[in-house]
This record gives sequence, structure tokens and C-alpha cells, in this order.
Amino acid sequence: MTYELYYWTGIQGRGEYVRLALEEAGVAYEDVAREEGDGVIEALSRETDTPSFAPPFLRHGKMIIGQTAAILLYLGDRLELAPKDERLRLWTHQIQLTIADFVVEGHDVHHPLGMGRYYEEQKPESLRRAEEFRDSRVPKFLRWFETILDRNPKGPDHLVGARLSYADLSLFQIVEGLDYAFPKLMQRIGADYPKLRALHDRVATRPNIAAYLKSNRRLPENESDLFRHYPELDE
Amino acid sequence: MTYELYYWTGIQGRGEYVRLALEEAGVAYEDVAREEGDGVIEALSRETDTPSFAPPFLRHGKMIIGQTAAILLYLGDRLELAPKDERLRLWTHQIQLTIADFVVEGHDVHHPLGMGRYYEEQKPESLRRAEEFRDSRVPKFLRWFETILDRNPKGPDHLVGARLSYADLSLFQIVEGLDYAFPKLMQRIGADYPKLRALHDRVATRPNIAAYLKSNRRLPENESDLFRHYPELDE
Repeated sequence: MTYELYYWTGIQGRGEYVRLALEEAGVAYEDVAREEGDGVIEALSRETDTPSFAPPFLRHGKMIIGQTAAILLYLGDRLELAPKDERLRLWTHQIQLTIADFVVEGHDVHHPLGMGRYYEEQKPESLRRAEEFRDSRVPKFLRWFETILDRNPKGPDHLVGARLSYADLSLFQIVEGLDYAFPKLMQRIGADYPKLRALHDRVATRPNIAAYLKSNRRLPENESDLFRHYPELDE
Repeated sequence: MTYELYYWTGIQGRGEYVRLALEEAGVAYEDVAREEGDGVIEALSRETDTPSFAPPFLRHGKMIIGQTAAILLYLGDRLELAPKDERLRLWTHQIQLTIADFVVEGHDVHHPLGMGRYYEEQKPESLRRAEEFRDSRVPKFLRWFETILDRNPKGPDHLVGARLSYADLSLFQIVEGLDYAFPKLMQRIGADYPKLRALHDRVATRPNIAAYLKSNRRLPENESDLFRHYPELDE
């Protein structure tokens, strides 16, 4: 039974968190819209009684699952990318949900007035929101990730337990996004989070991930994506 | 083993989604900060290796669970407020995650530049963001909820299957929040979502919920909460 990912073509976006899990596990999957066009997303939503509010969603047999963190909760069990113990399984999910919250903030920094207007129509407001994002929100989230790595009873190599989980892969992607969108900020504060950086670097060299990052399945970052490089927001 | 809820005193906030589940189930629980003060939230976060990024979190035996939707995923199984079938259990969770996304937008309408500034410092921006919220975002979310009720193979009385779930309770709370914060908008568009309104009204009359809403455990809405009534945002 093939995993079918439904997500917009052209950006990494939230689909990327799912792709990283599928790629790390080395399972066959279809990136449906890249093969058949974005129209399939709407088409599937029209015909199911469990329509997702927005992509990504995953189709697997009779399951159609939306919400990135819920998809990863499902995949984590099947791809051995999450602990089996109930407490740690839920803790992994909780971390993923907080990563999802951070992704919203990373997007809203360039769309504070809403997604109905272009960035260019809300630039002064973005400049103001970016201040708080750089000075307060990014450090607060990164400090939390670093604390979790610090307190992991199994050591700081993973967010949860002694093995790689989907949350580690997603945190790698967060660091990728910040490095791309806020290079100056990361230059300035990155050294405050050494365990986070080490985790990022370790994930990047895992064989399946390294191969994926070099493949044409990995799209380049761009200014239609969630994390965008607008230099004026990174002063 | 008592359920202990850790959440800020003084507002319904995200804690309310958890309270509604506990109240409906009629189980004993402790609203810890209301009894011992907000300091307990920080204190517990300092000592655990699974510290939540933010409240609410739930303590139950050795479990400490943060993120509202993760708490409800856990409680749903134990309080019979979620289907046992894997597909529908995950679908219920997915709906809850989308409710959580809507709550963020309901908050950001009065804090578009970030939570570090008072509403009064970002009023012109809030007025602009509120336009899109009223004209586009609220209708999009409410239409999605109505569609789910429409397509439920077991009928439109519940979001999922033929029984009440925590998602129904949370959707009740969303309607409560909108009625409070955007009475004019709801007056204007509410009739477009009759099944949603009917669900809200049915939840309100469930014996345990009705008793809770009349008790002093149910705090009144106010302008420190997520949904706030600023008449100028509801034109």
C-alpha cells in the first residue's frame, strides 16, 4: 500500500515535514500533485467525508489524514520514527505540535495582516512584527528545543529517547528554514543553541536524508514558501 | 488518579477546551493554578524532563501532557469522548487541530503584530486584519465545520460518528467565542451554518455542561482572553 502525499507543488511548505519522514524511512511514496497537478488536492477533498481544511494530507489505503502533526503521528508508528511507549509517543507528538506553532509564526512574520494580501502590501507591519520575532519568539522557541535536548534522560542526541524520531527530522527543517530566512539572526544567536545545531548537522548526514537533499525531489527554498528570505526582516 | 489541569487563572483560554471534556465526563479534576496560584505552572515546568512550551498542560500520574489537542487526544480515549476506531479517532484529532488553528487566528485578529504589544498599540493593524478575518477566514472555517456535519455518514448531530466527542465540545466553545467577540458578524452570517448552531445548542443543554456553565468554575469571557469583544473589530 503506497503512501500518497497531497501537497502544493512549488514549495517545501508543510509537506516537507512529511517528506522527510518518508525519505528517512526509505519507503515508496507518491507526491501526487507533483505528478498530476494541484487539481488533485481539491478533487480528493470534494469526494471524501473526511476532507482536510488544507493540505498536506496523506492517503494510505482507506485513511485520508490531514494536519501535518497528525500525519506524522500516524507515520511515526508505522515507520518506526516514534517511541512505542505511550508517554514518550505523546511527548514526541507534543513537540511536533509546538514545531507547528512555530511554523505559523515563521509565516506570519511576513503576513501579519493575513494571507489575503501580498507581502508587499504589508511590509511596514512585517517590519514591526519581525522585531518581536527575532528578539523574543525565535529565542524562546530555540531555548525550549535546547532545554529538551538538555533534559533528555537518554542524552542530547535526540529530542526524545535514544533514537531518531520524526520530531528530530522536523526540527532539522526548522533550522533549515531559519538559516535560509534569517541568516544574520542565526549568525548572531545560533551559538547559544549548540545541541540544536549538532542535531541539525547529524540529521543532514543521515544517508537517506543526505541523498534526498541532493535529489531533485528536494525543492529549493523560495519566497512563496513558509520561511522566506526578505533581508529587511533580518536586520 | 486525579486529573490535574495547569492553566492560567482569570481566562477561559485554551484550558477551557480541556475543562469542557473533564466536565462532560463528570470526572474529578483539580484546576491547580486556581487553587494554588499561577506560580505552580512555572514550578512544574522547571522540574520535568517533558516541559510544555506553554500551558495548558495536564498531569495524570506520571504523564505530563501539553498542547490542548494532545491533551484531548489522551483524554478522549479515557473519558470515552472519542471513537475507538483508528481512522475516526485520528479524524477527531485532525478536526481538533484545525480548531486549534482557528483559535490562533481568533487571537491574532487583535494581536497582528505579536503578543508583546498591547491591543491598543496595534489597533490600526487589528482593524485591517479583522476585515479579512470576518470576510474570509471565519466563513471558510465555519463552512468547513458545516461540511463535516453534512457529510458525516452517521448524520449531522455530531462531527464524527454517532456519539459526542471532545471535538463537538470544542466546536461549541468556538461558537461561544465568536458569539461573544463578533456578535454582529454572527448575526449576519450565522444562519448560513444551521447544523453548527444546532450542535452548539445541543451541547449547551447536556446536563453536565449546562451545570458547568451555570457554576462559578466557568469564568466569564473577558478582554484578556483569546476571543475578545472589541466592537470596532466587529463592524
